[in-house]
Amino acid sequence: MGYETVELGGGARAAELRAEARDVAEAVGRVRLVVVVATDDESTAWYVRSITRAAEKVGIDCTTVRLPPDAAPAAIRQELLALSADPTVHGVILQTPLPPGASAADLAGAIAPEKDVDGANPLSLGRLAAGLPAFAPATAEAVVSLLDAHGIALAGRSVAVVGRSTVVGKPLAHLLLDRDATVTVCHSRTADLAAATRTADIVVAAAGRPGLIRGEHLAPGSVVVDVGTNATEDGGLTGDVDAESVAGRAAALSPVPGGVGPVTTALLLRHTALAAQRAAAGGQ
Amino acid sequence: MGYETVELGGGARAAELRAEARDVAEAVGRVRLVVVVATDDESTAWYVRSITRAAEKVGIDCTTVRLPPDAAPAAIRQELLALSADPTVHGVILQTPLPPGASAADLAGAIAPEKDVDGANPLSLGRLAAGLPAFAPATAEAVVSLLDAHGIALAGRSVAVVGRSTVVGKPLAHLLLDRDATVTVCHSRTADLAAATRTADIVVAAAGRPGLIRGEHLAPGSVVVDVGTNATEDGGLTGDVDAESVAGRAAALSPVPGGVGPVTTALLLRHTALAAQRAAAGGQ
Repeated sequence: MGYETVELGGGARAAELRAEARDVAEAVGRVRLVVVVATDDESTAWYVRSITRAAEKVGIDCTTVRLPPDAAPAAIRQELLALSADPTVHGVILQTPLPPGASAADLAGAIAPEKDVDGANPLSLGRLAAGLPAFAPATAEAVVSLLDAHGIALAGRSVAVVGRSTVVGKPLAHLLLDRDATVTVCHSRTADLAAATRTADIVVAAAGRPGLIRGEHLAPGSVVVDVGTNATEDGGLTGDVDAESVAGRAAALSPVPGGVGPVTTALLLRHTALAAQRAAAGGQ
Repeated sequence: MGYETVELGGGARAAELRAEARDVAEAVGRVRLVVVVATDDESTAWYVRSITRAAEKVGIDCTTVRLPPDAAPAAIRQELLALSADPTVHGVILQTPLPPGASAADLAGAIAPEKDVDGANPLSLGRLAAGLPAFAPATAEAVVSLLDAHGIALAGRSVAVVGRSTVVGKPLAHLLLDRDATVTVCHSRTADLAAATRTADIVVAAAGRPGLIRGEHLAPGSVVVDVGTNATEDGGLTGDVDAESVAGRAAALSPVPGGVGPVTTALLLRHTALAAQRAAAGGQ
């Protein structure tokens, strides 16, 4: 069908980022990341273990603070404030899902911006949008980092972002605008998704719906980044893109797993190492 | 040419908003807005005088704090912090342009969010993006308010926002996404502006370039909102849309002056009255 769809793997870029994190962590000495968890969700536990292992490999101490799955928002906020005030902690992540009634964006406002290594505090998002220094949400930044790693230009190109979440779609739109891309944000209420995505040079699927993006959603020769991390019945992971259907039509596709995911984890570690470096430089 | 282009005037909506502001201000008692100015720019002075007059008409006391046009950023920040701490002040606006070297977004971080009636603090923008309560930048909110006033639906429709400023384009994108529109943000580096805007149901011109949007940029029957406020040589105001060229092709066009402008000013007053009401309710 014209295109030999190239795979945009994240492994090499992730390895580079981990090496940077390791170098910074070694130079700084002790670097500590804390993940706050308030759920019994098994896939969350799996994800947190994978971050912990990755952190240890680059010399970052990663500990988990477990709160009960019915923790009150005030208790979660209290924990985040305490970690924000603790000079031995350099990075703080508030893991989702949260107990019913707790708002991730609202609670993340309690994470000190300089320790907000996953860009979850609304202040981080606002500063990002305003062009001021801030940590971007790691998944959003991973999309740009993966495209950069594969030499895919963004300036002047049209990008359709499918999904308008506070953690991926919206911050990614700002990162892409900052790189001079023309950005369209589509979502579940978009009247004609295929019409919106078919004019784009690059399509980023971040809707959390398995198989949402198919060949007919793409202009021939476009680049597709799959940000979906949907659990499969057999305990595996599947993206938002129907890889079989886009093969031969897309010029390139980032796989799930093995694309954006490893870059995201590596960026979290790099952010944490940088936060520790800045804290050390600031005499904290 | 098929379309009798309807004028989307802002006068009626502005009058409604001013009446709401007047009612709230009367109920609260004393309401005070302070505009911080650090420029000798004549069109800025004109704009501030028009806000002051409009405020007085609805019973809001509006005072201007003048700093020299070469004020240091630290001095401006100090003033904003003092006003944020002053319980007699309910709304604070940092007027642009600012002295060379001063960043509006960075300095606006010193405006207390509850007094940030023009949504200039990056925290306000981030909260807006995250779906949390915050004052939106008045100009961005005015676009949505004007469209609502004229019964133009947003859900499921495609909107092209031309301009990616922190004060209009970016916050407007979030307001439109929140209303279930599909949003494309275009800008000076967009490769083919007409291609991006011609597929939109609604085009918002907020680039600050007189005459940028012409008939060929529009799908027949689309709605155009002109946010441009460009000074003309004779001391007047002109928008970003070439009104003559789009007549007969657009179904509707908001004029400059008389469209978004009066709604913007009225929203600033309404925000200030609401801020005072909340402060009174909070016992401040």
